[in-house]
Amino acid sequence: MIGYGGDYNPEQWPREVWDRDYEAFGLAEINTVTLGVFAWAHLQPAEDTHDFSTLDAIVDRATAGGRRIVLATPSGAMPPWLAHAYPDACRVDFEGRRHVYGQRHNACPSSPDFRRLSVALAGRLAERYGDNPAIVAWHVGNEYGGACYCPLCAAAFRRWLRERHGDLDGLNRAWHTTFWSHTFTDWEQVQPPTALSEHWRGPNHTAFQGITLDYRRFLSDALLGGFVAEKAAIREHVPDTPVTTNLMGLYQPVDYHRWAPHLDFASWDNYPPEDPSAARTAARMALAHGLVRGLRGGRPFWVMEQTPSVTASRDVNAVKRPGVLRLWSWQSVAHGADAVLYFQLRQSRGACEKYHGAVLDHAGRTGTRVFREVAALGREFARVGAELTGARTPARVALLVDWDSWWAVEMSDGPNRNVRYLDVLTAYHRALWQANAALDVVPVTADLSGYDVVVAPLLHVVKGDVTERVTAFVERGGAFVTTALSGRVDEDDNAFLDDGPFASLLGLWVEETDARQPDVVNPVALFGAEHAARHVFEVVVVEDAEVLGAYGADFYAGSPAVTRAARGRGSAWYAATLLDDAGVAALVRAVLDEHGLAGPLADVPDVEVAERVGADGTRWLYVLNHGPRRVVRCPVAGVDVLSGRELAVGGELVLEAVDVLVVRVAADA
Amino acid sequence: MIGYGGDYNPEQWPREVWDRDYEAFGLAEINTVTLGVFAWAHLQPAEDTHDFSTLDAIVDRATAGGRRIVLATPSGAMPPWLAHAYPDACRVDFEGRRHVYGQRHNACPSSPDFRRLSVALAGRLAERYGDNPAIVAWHVGNEYGGACYCPLCAAAFRRWLRERHGDLDGLNRAWHTTFWSHTFTDWEQVQPPTALSEHWRGPNHTAFQGITLDYRRFLSDALLGGFVAEKAAIREHVPDTPVTTNLMGLYQPVDYHRWAPHLDFASWDNYPPEDPSAARTAARMALAHGLVRGLRGGRPFWVMEQTPSVTASRDVNAVKRPGVLRLWSWQSVAHGADAVLYFQLRQSRGACEKYHGAVLDHAGRTGTRVFREVAALGREFARVGAELTGARTPARVALLVDWDSWWAVEMSDGPNRNVRYLDVLTAYHRALWQANAALDVVPVTADLSGYDVVVAPLLHVVKGDVTERVTAFVERGGAFVTTALSGRVDEDDNAFLDDGPFASLLGLWVEETDARQPDVVNPVALFGAEHAARHVFEVVVVEDAEVLGAYGADFYAGSPAVTRAARGRGSAWYAATLLDDAGVAALVRAVLDEHGLAGPLADVPDVEVAERVGADGTRWLYVLNHGPRRVVRCPVAGVDVLSGRELAVGGELVLEAVDVLVVRVAADA
Amino acid sequence: MIGYGGDYNPEQWPREVWDRDYEAFGLAEINTVTLGVFAWAHLQPAEDTHDFSTLDAIVDRATAGGRRIVLATPSGAMPPWLAHAYPDACRVDFEGRRHVYGQRHNACPSSPDFRRLSVALAGRLAERYGDNPAIVAWHVGNEYGGACYCPLCAAAFRRWLRERHGDLDGLNRAWHTTFWSHTFTDWEQVQPPTALSEHWRGPNHTAFQGITLDYRRFLSDALLGGFVAEKAAIREHVPDTPVTTNLMGLYQPVDYHRWAPHLDFASWDNYPPEDPSAARTAARMALAHGLVRGLRGGRPFWVMEQTPSVTASRDVNAVKRPGVLRLWSWQSVAHGADAVLYFQLRQSRGACEKYHGAVLDHAGRTGTRVFREVAALGREFARVGAELTGARTPARVALLVDWDSWWAVEMSDGPNRNVRYLDVLTAYHRALWQANAALDVVPVTADLSGYDVVVAPLLHVVKGDVTERVTAFVERGGAFVTTALSGRVDEDDNAFLDDGPFASLLGLWVEETDARQPDVVNPVALFGAEHAARHVFEVVVVEDAEVLGAYGADFYAGSPAVTRAARGRGSAWYAATLLDDAGVAALVRAVLDEHGLAGPLADVPDVEVAERVGADGTRWLYVLNHGPRRVVRCPVAGVDVLSGRELAVGGELVLEAVDVLVVRVAADA
Repeated sequence: MIGYGGDYNPEQWPREVWDRDYEAFGLAEINTVTLGVFAWAHLQPAEDTHDFSTLDAIVDRATAGGRRIVLATPSGAMPPWLAHAYPDACRVDFEGRRHVYGQRHNACPSSPDFRRLSVALAGRLAERYGDNPAIVAWHVGNEYGGACYCPLCAAAFRRWLRERHGDLDGLNRAWHTTFWSHTFTDWEQVQPPTALSEHWRGPNHTAFQGITLDYRRFLSDALLGGFVAEKAAIREHVPDTPVTTNLMGLYQPVDYHRWAPHLDFASWDNYPPEDPSAARTAARMALAHGLVRGLRGGRPFWVMEQTPSVTASRDVNAVKRPGVLRLWSWQSVAHGADAVLYFQLRQSRGACEKYHGAVLDHAGRTGTRVFREVAALGREFARVGAELTGARTPARVALLVDWDSWWAVEMSDGPNRNVRYLDVLTAYHRALWQANAALDVVPVTADLSGYDVVVAPLLHVVKGDVTERVTAFVERGGAFVTTALSGRVDEDDNAFLDDGPFASLLGLWVEETDARQPDVVNPVALFGAEHAARHVFEVVVVEDAEVLGAYGADFYAGSPAVTRAARGRGSAWYAATLLDDAGVAALVRAVLDEHGLAGPLADVPDVEVAERVGADGTRWLYVLNHGPRRVVRCPVAGVDVLSGRELAVGGELVLEAVDVLVVRVAADA
Repeated sequence: MIGYGGDYNPEQWPREVWDRDYEAFGLAEINTVTLGVFAWAHLQPAEDTHDFSTLDAIVDRATAGGRRIVLATPSGAMPPWLAHAYPDACRVDFEGRRHVYGQRHNACPSSPDFRRLSVALAGRLAERYGDNPAIVAWHVGNEYGGACYCPLCAAAFRRWLRERHGDLDGLNRAWHTTFWSHTFTDWEQVQPPTALSEHWRGPNHTAFQGITLDYRRFLSDALLGGFVAEKAAIREHVPDTPVTTNLMGLYQPVDYHRWAPHLDFASWDNYPPEDPSAARTAARMALAHGLVRGLRGGRPFWVMEQTPSVTASRDVNAVKRPGVLRLWSWQSVAHGADAVLYFQLRQSRGACEKYHGAVLDHAGRTGTRVFREVAALGREFARVGAELTGARTPARVALLVDWDSWWAVEMSDGPNRNVRYLDVLTAYHRALWQANAALDVVPVTADLSGYDVVVAPLLHVVKGDVTERVTAFVERGGAFVTTALSGRVDEDDNAFLDDGPFASLLGLWVEETDARQPDVVNPVALFGAEHAARHVFEVVVVEDAEVLGAYGADFYAGSPAVTRAARGRGSAWYAATLLDDAGVAALVRAVLDEHGLAGPLADVPDVEVAERVGADGTRWLYVLNHGPRRVVRCPVAGVDVLSGRELAVGGELVLEAVDVLVVRVAADA
Repeated sequence: MIGYGGDYNPEQWPREVWDRDYEAFGLAEINTVTLGVFAWAHLQPAEDTHDFSTLDAIVDRATAGGRRIVLATPSGAMPPWLAHAYPDACRVDFEGRRHVYGQRHNACPSSPDFRRLSVALAGRLAERYGDNPAIVAWHVGNEYGGACYCPLCAAAFRRWLRERHGDLDGLNRAWHTTFWSHTFTDWEQVQPPTALSEHWRGPNHTAFQGITLDYRRFLSDALLGGFVAEKAAIREHVPDTPVTTNLMGLYQPVDYHRWAPHLDFASWDNYPPEDPSAARTAARMALAHGLVRGLRGGRPFWVMEQTPSVTASRDVNAVKRPGVLRLWSWQSVAHGADAVLYFQLRQSRGACEKYHGAVLDHAGRTGTRVFREVAALGREFARVGAELTGARTPARVALLVDWDSWWAVEMSDGPNRNVRYLDVLTAYHRALWQANAALDVVPVTADLSGYDVVVAPLLHVVKGDVTERVTAFVERGGAFVTTALSGRVDEDDNAFLDDGPFASLLGLWVEETDARQPDVVNPVALFGAEHAARHVFEVVVVEDAEVLGAYGADFYAGSPAVTRAARGRGSAWYAATLLDDAGVAALVRAVLDEHGLAGPLADVPDVEVAERVGADGTRWLYVLNHGPRRVVRCPVAGVDVLSGRELAVGGELVLEAVDVLVVRVAADA
């Protein structure tokens, strides 16, 4: 069964509305409800008062309806009394300002009072509801994120630093404090990096990258501490039910790779940023699905939230066009989701999400386009979902994502502030995605032995044994692809004092790094076509590599821009500059083609193909059309489980706009 | 007599200059001086010391010259000693920062010390000067505005909330605090909505619209409290002389409709924002004049300030072109002003207004273009003004303005942050203005019985009995025009749980609200022409209305964009999207034409016609040319009181650029 | 000998690296090293502990290598223990926020603790190293700048104000406090002008220009106080070695003219802002060189820092193109530098300057393009430098620069915020530079008797006897050129109450000042061509001057835009508006031509010619080509000391791109 449903906050409505809601849920085949996400205020109206009556009724109503429950702890939003009683449970922001009660996701992760109260309440919930078999998952907090720079965090940071660096000598070495007279002689001298200490022009402009990098790691760990503590309190009463929290995909402030081991399964909230290109949007969602699936070793994950129609928090909130909801929902499944849930089932009446889309609008109508699309999809999922869940996604291509590099490259002074990690990551991902290459998105610590191609854009920070593992991967036949600005610093953001860890693998070293304004283009000829390079232009000295492309302009015209080094049975590819989409696509496709890893319909624009494979070897090929109607040759023989049509290899296949096929291919086909 | 003169601060100059000033005033027929606006420091050099000698001399000099005096209380700018003695008389800003002494308009409206001292000084001034018959008005403070978020205001806000919402249950209901665990259980938990509590990205981005909306109302009332208290102190000594303060026209932070009952007459400062279009500027001023006139039931108002030439506070301060000063001054009179005053009569020597224009420049020259224009206008006013003042402005068209909607629509999360209340209000107003429709600008609480057409753009907040009154108005024959995003929330900014209050009147309900970036245009065919719609596109379900225009693009192409519902003897019109100027003009003109309410010369671009009517029925038709020279047919028979020319209906009338006619039409004509 | 070398911080590296470094320094003929700039933390690891062992070794190694040392005091960056022990040694920023430890250039200039500790350490350094003959200069602190608004500064500001204004009456008069009730009755009422007092929208938007202007002067003096105190401590042990600090050229926050008397020689750091035009960049550097040379009466100065290749602190950091390093270094010498040093000799490993260029990169390579260019230039300097140093730069043209005007014109409310002092100053300078006019850049207090032409753009503030001196200069035959917005205010930023101090000299007064958006152009015909005027358009009344150019548009079309008044034997020129580059060039060239002061190759674009003259009358003509290859006629007879070629007057001279000639012209030639 594909999980289908979403966030539901019936405490906002009189109970007669609940019955009407459940009637509608029935029409839409909604089987899963997420309850209690922001329930703290009614669960615990005062520190010494608990009242479970409302939640009891809500859980009872859901259980009575036979639905699966995701039960949340309410720590995503503290109640007013808590902030009033414990002002230092509120955060201090980057500007050094202590906040007072307001909004949500607002608790200091180092506040002992907040920790004590949130953990105690999680334990009480687990104790009370833990044996309800309708509860299929626990959902701790909500969209962990943000930052705090208060004295409690400063103290916790110092403890964290002792743990990491051992002593002050280690700290001073890591942070290169001989620069600008920064040698710390007492732990108490260490300050969180803020607008009042090391920063100017905001969080990415720091005098000491090492300090800021460590603070980001600390914050990610401090937030994780809250999750881990609540999970432990739940586990005291609930031995088996999986515990998760809803992540946010490509979210820079929290290093999900540090979180992954603590999640029983991964889940995330899918709100892609507005992009005029449907294909770019689809690719970005695919990347995030892959990232989240990669957190738990490729096991199925959940889409914990998506909007049925509009968001409210954007400056401009367009409705999802007809069919898009279905297309994107199936895309989630195609990439490994076993549940696709909405925020939210019924629209809030007031405050900042009152215009956020919902399955049921303010008037509770079931005749709207949105409800009709939700219900049709629910019925479709109900009809065919059973065979699809649990299947896995084998891949021979890995895309490396690294939060440390993401942080470091964007907070670097020099060479170019216009280099954005996600821009480069998504450009390389789009090339893989357009080629419909089966793909894992993994951390730099991942075991690479199962892959033939590893793509690592902007691998700026080199840490642990990644160099050794990548080199071994290449030696035994793999293709490694990396880019300008990779291999530049160690995990403390200190430069290497030689040619750098990748030099011998790539067969080159970087003599100069030129940077230019965004309107400056240097043409790079590659495989017979000319592509535009921008932003960063490394002048490299090739020692032992084949030059595939060279700069066409500037004083380094003719010098290498793209190279390939044969190493052992494999190869190491380097783009010494940032190529445009077509250039990246040419490079990536060449690598894929060497290994025969381009997927089905790789040359059909906007058509995405993703595959899941069942335990018995059955394959399901998901074909998703993000562009206009197209007629293609069917790449496999099988049955479209949605339409029931039999499909023959090479047969004409009509792909309508926003249409989806799920082609079952027998294990022996 | 038309009041003519302005702000005069002779304390900045030696007394021999005063005599030269008054000589120049004589040349310019200046009959009114505003005195003492920022006089606190010399009136009360220390808390226990008063010194009226300077003001005595200033008042004596003005009185001796036979001029009318507007005497100000000086509370618009506190003296340094006050801030030093009472630091909490200074404001705390939106960012939570306590200010110290500086600038003006800087006093916390909840500070008991500031209140006590400002009221006491107002009382002393009234006691001392109250029986001077030259004083024709009292001018309390100056340009009330801004905001404070200090602990004193927090406490006052809580008191104000108790008054408004009764108890915490009422508060929690109004603010929809079941959302995000916000249930308040103690009044002390309530915080002003700031960057440190409910807001992000500034004053329009709040997690709880209800909280922020209430705080805006509270602030408007708190500022009003200062005015009311000073007025009361004046009234202890001055039984009859009218008391006012200078408002700022279309000024969002203060709800002038909440202030109106407390003003003996309305006045405002006319500094239109720079706009390359002279007609747009003129229309905007006309709207503000109408708004201010509407505050006191249509009675004549004053222009308390305008600049004779340049402002200083803009980034770029252009001089008024020749003739513009006269044109705009006459426009003020045309719309109901009985006085037209300048800021200022003599130019400041130092500080931030030293380059602000003045009747007399730093050197006191009377030979400048500016002085010549001021003097010529003064003589013109003196020559013809006597017959013009006191006349009223009857209108059959009402434009509804609502601060609650202005605030709510711009702080809403979703659908579109690019929707600005003034953009839409002024677009509809410009259409009425271009048609020279006689127009009142009134609050939603206004009695609508005297109107045939009521235009209500972006009437987002529906409060009180407005639905009932509008419905009755339509039933008995009126035409009601409203737009997308109207009728969406109640006065606490909570969404309606049904089709909304206007659904049955308009004959439709809104199924979806699409929003798009500013460059996305959806063409709407209306009355045979195609117009561009932008920003917001409601997909409506028409139950009982005529469709006048439909969308031409997107998945809702063909669905209704403009409708007209016949109801009783009247009609209710709806624009489900935001049309461009031409589209609004087509719609508005159709409504006006149904009621025969387009005014004279409605089809002549840039020519404004406004009318005032005397007690005996004499009409004065003001014809103002904001565009290039035009030759038109004279719409009435009468005498141009400026030139003395007799005009016949249909005769050729030459309107020079920036020229003005004031055509007297006899009561029986 | 031309000083050549730069900042060197070997404490960041193990000692074996030092030897390799010095080997490389030998290859590059590096003869000067700047040591200890940020050494505080290792010199004084705690308040009561000093440790000179590292610096001893560094100094010994440099001395042993026979190099010249510039020894720095480390007060540019305090160590963590200092900020921890004395929190008020950290600054309070413009927003009122107390900073904590971080970055550099961060000490409150009014902190007695910081002053005591920094001065004591400077004294200890002088005591220990003062008799080392290798030390050729002392370098106090680093790049003084920034601002503090703390209570200690507030108190110091009040003392400074008493000194300047005598009593409160003087203060109130200067600040024009009758405006907005600002009369101060106690010194304690005075607040630093910040975002919390007189400012809005940042440091250039103040309610009281007089207050802010005084605070800027105070801050410049307060920072100078630190320099002066350290210098005095050095002088207790070091009687003769010159003491300097590295200035920043066209740096608005510090008035270098107030600093000049305290510098034994002037030096600055040359990091020109990125500009797509090579000529504009060259001109800007020439202006800064001139400004710095002008600080010490034209004596040779030093370039204390420049980057060999890239900066790191810009958003986009381009490498210097081949040959540019040599070209710009020779330009420094051409304009009077006797030393050209780099920041830095070896690249930092971590923190915010790790990507800043250096003579030696992270790997210490000597085979890079950058090192090769550095070394080639070092050898060239070594080969020919001996004859060049010490020479002076005689000039008959003076460009007046005035920090008070720079501050005042940019913080003025009205007429136009788009008027930027540097834009206008550099436009006039570029015209002089393109004409290769020998030029001094001097303060308004300079003796003008040696000049024939004085150009004073935006001389907004008129102070001291400048009017008298300029008038006398003109009377005896000089040409004075000034612009719109000049002569407007006295040194307290109060407007003049008559036609202004320059009216009789210029033969006109300003009746109106129009200001327009940047896209509005008014054409001005001048010497037969039409030029574009923008931003500010003064409508002037000419009493006694020749009109050279008139406005071509707007209601003041035909009125004078450029004038020339004959006075005595000289002339006073006025541009009543801001002309485009071509317009300024036409005006400036006309003035130069009247006096025969256009220099050699004045009509060859992008070719700069500057001259130095030795004590014996030998001239060195530096010819620098900032543009593409050109063939010109040689303007003098002499020998190019770089190539050894003999050059004849009028002979064909090939100027390659980025090439340099240094033509020695015998004293009797």
